[in-house]
Amino acid sequence: MKTLKSINKMQFSPIKLLTAIITVFTLTLLFSTTTIMAQEKTQMVRLVKIKVDPLQLDSYNIALKEQMTTAVRVELGVLTYYAVADKNDPSQITILEIYADTVAYQSHIETAHFKKYKETVKNMVKSLELMDVSLIGAAKKEGL
Amino acid sequence: MKTLKSINKMQFSPIKLLTAIITVFTLTLLFSTTTIMAQEKTQMVRLVKIKVDPLQLDSYNIALKEQMTTAVRVELGVLTYYAVADKNDPSQITILEIYADTVAYQSHIETAHFKKYKETVKNMVKSLELMDVSLIGAAKKEGL
Repeated sequence: MKTLKSINKMQFSPIKLLTAIITVFTLTLLFSTTTIMAQEKTQMVRLVKIKVDPLQLDSYNIALKEQMTTAVRVELGVLTYYAVADKNDPSQITILEIYADTVAYQSHIETAHFKKYKETVKNMVKSLELMDVSLIGAAKKEGL
Repeated sequence: MKTLKSINKMQFSPIKLLTAIITVFTLTLLFSTTTIMAQEKTQMVRLVKIKVDPLQLDSYNIALKEQMTTAVRVELGVLTYYAVADKNDPSQITILEIYADTVAYQSHIETAHFKKYKETVKNMVKSLELMDVSLIGAAKKEGL
């Protein structure tokens, strides 16, 4: 407590305050960028094309979204999912998947949430096509 | 100058300094999240499939990356691009494109950088397929 009190007696000028704020802001942005660059070297990227039973599409989309958000939240190596539906036929779904590496992917398909998803959708999915791809490039607004 | 000098005479305790830093950090993250949620309602999302002349693939990829990074950097309404190549045939390219809305897209195709890209690649592209899609969901690690 003595140390805390003595620290609290120290005083900083507004210039120092501003400098500290700008430093934190810059380092936060810089760290994000560095993380992305480090991960891209080993990434496993895939396009998945799924044809879903149109009568079960709502249930399928709920299960898919739950799987995606859970995996990204709890698994370190699950980086990115984008799932899109053809506007002319929403039962034609394409998913872009990015994992840190193939080890992260192998670990992912053994998780309880992925197995639950597979069990839930097994009678909803009419066909499944997996395509291994490599990332040519990505560009995104900051924070997206 | 008098005002600046008097501001600089003000003093802040380490607790105030820490509070200010945490506030900036939190607001930065919060603002990003809010932006995403606001934009999703009107977004225009598209999958583009491009077959490129294999002999001109390197030149095509350079032109594509320049177009993507420039558009995201200078156009407010150009949000996200992911370009991927089939591992079995890297001349088969798929691009996921997200614009804030259709107005942003119409404005995008009138820009100098997009027209330059179109001119550069006109003899490199063998076929082009545009598919309007809707976003079922996206999940990404913070900072990606």
